Amino acid sequence: MTRMHVPVRLRWNDLDAYGHVNNAAMLVLLEEARVQAFWGAEIVDSVTNPSTLWLVARQEIEYLSPVPYQSQPLDVQLWLGRLGGASLEICYEVCSPLDAEPFTQYARAASTIVLVDPTTQRPRKITEDERASWSAWSDEPIAFTRRG
Amino acid sequence: MTRMHVPVRLRWNDLDAYGHVNNAAMLVLLEEARVQAFWGAEIVDSVTNPSTLWLVARQEIEYLSPVPYQSQPLDVQLWLGRLGGASLEICYEVCSPLDAEPFTQYARAASTIVLVDPTTQRPRKITEDERASWSAWSDEPIAFTRRG
Amino acid sequence: MTRMHVPVRLRWNDLDAYGHVNNAAMLVLLEEARVQAFWGAEIVDSVTNPSTLWLVARQEIEYLSPVPYQSQPLDVQLWLGRLGGASLEICYEVCSPLDAEPFTQYARAASTIVLVDPTTQRPRKITEDERASWSAWSDEPIAFTRRG
Amino acid sequence: MTRMHVPVRLRWNDLDAYGHVNNAAMLVLLEEARVQAFWGAEIVDSVTNPSTLWLVARQEIEYLSPVPYQSQPLDVQLWLGRLGGASLEICYEVCSPLDAEPFTQYARAASTIVLVDPTTQRPRKITEDERASWSAWSDEPIAFTRRG
Repeated sequence: MTRMHVPVRLRWNDLDAYGHVNNAAMLVLLEEARVQAFWGAEIVDSVTNPSTLWLVARQEIEYLSPVPYQSQPLDVQLWLGRLGGASLEICYEVCSPLDAEPFTQYARAASTIVLVDPTTQRPRKITEDERASWSAWSDEPIAFTRRG
Repeated sequence: MTRMHVPVRLRWNDLDAYGHVNNAAMLVLLEEARVQAFWGAEIVDSVTNPSTLWLVARQEIEYLSPVPYQSQPLDVQLWLGRLGGASLEICYEVCSPLDAEPFTQYARAASTIVLVDPTTQRPRKITEDERASWSAWSDEPIAFTRRG
Repeated sequence: MTRMHVPVRLRWNDLDAYGHVNNAAMLVLLEEARVQAFWGAEIVDSVTNPSTLWLVARQEIEYLSPVPYQSQPLDVQLWLGRLGGASLEICYEVCSPLDAEPFTQYARAASTIVLVDPTTQRPRKITEDERASWSAWSDEPIAFTRRG
Repeated sequence: MTRMHVPVRLRWNDLDAYGHVNNAAMLVLLEEARVQAFWGAEIVDSVTNPSTLWLVARQEIEYLSPVPYQSQPLDVQLWLGRLGGASLEICYEVCSPLDAEPFTQYARAASTIVLVDPTTQRPRKITEDERASWSAWSDEPIAFTRRG
């Protein structure tokens, strides 16, 4: 199983009045993980004039355990559950920091991203270079268990 | 079809560098809608010592159209897709402001909430009063179309 | 004394783990108040292509009392402490909701804003129309007491 | 001149629709820097039951240059401009990442913090241990230039 491991640091301000990371703040952590994992320097450095927009079409998340504040970065594991023509499904497991004892799985999630051309505002195809680079991270999609 | 209509005002700060409401900020809007819709004054006014914790166990959202900044409050429609023993599924449609032309459906979403006793930290049953009050808002759960 | 009164609603997510509105979230409330008070529809509706950027050059805030969550909008009072050539100083008092008992003053603050032309990225002069409209809100600047 | 250097990573979500770090998000960065610099493990690990509350009484910030998104952590420099009986003034300079060319000073700021006992909700004295540890970081307070 091939996954990227992205360390994502909590902020004190991610906590809400319950003293845990807020449910919406968890999606900010996922966003941080995918920006770090998938955006090359050319995207990051041209943020006000990017060559591609990464639009989120769908998200699903199961919160398995409340996330307390902690000073070590969480270990966010990412992989691609699907690599389509102009879209991709990023899968995540949000885990306690590497080497933390005991190990805790805080959440599992998936985001469907559509790559959009900022000029035409229309989806653009994943290039062959991107596909070659990203396909190394393909794996089974998340099996969600709480769809009820 | 019986739905609550909750007006939720955007904040300028909900926008990200793409100039639209950020994907995670959308979940903050859902949170605001459900706090306004479901929390009685006794919960709101005792936030640092609440009698019940509303823990989010699961969320799913489909983003149908980017949300631009606008000064009129969005119309967030809520209903209950399921009313269990100690949990409920809140369904949402996030729509353009009432009377806006043209009408836009920005997102559809669902949150599974578990009611937790803050003393025992364990799920507590939905009371008969709550069930009587909330069952008026029961309807079909969201039919998500992008699960792929 | 002539002040604008802008109702600004808290969000549950403004609270941090101390159970009060976070210190940085207070500045988001100020931002909301000034957007509602000073931005005409033409600015709000052209957010991705605005005719003027409102850049914040400086802020100062004194937190007088912790802000608990409450369902009624806070009463944010605004006025202009200074109206310069290309900049203005907006003064604020953040107060408990109108008619709330007892009355509480939560914070006093000031923001210096520079109006910037998005094309040239340089400060642009306040127009005569803006000056005529805004000068009605001029008053003494805030007297801060905690500069130490 | 003795300053702490705290690396603080931006998040994509810190940007607002202007494509720069939002003015209020800058205060979240300051909060992160001071949490990392001053909070011992015993505070961080007992966040829901802390032995001391760090309440912000006052903040002042001058924004010197817009902060673009960048993948390297900013270099937030901190020192103590004042060390009182139950309060301290933390001074900050927010700078471009270490080794970045060219060097940019993005902001200067100061926060007055009051240490509060969570049981009595009253200010508590800085202990001798804290004073001994923190006085190594004392220096001249910030000379703000935009007070007008």
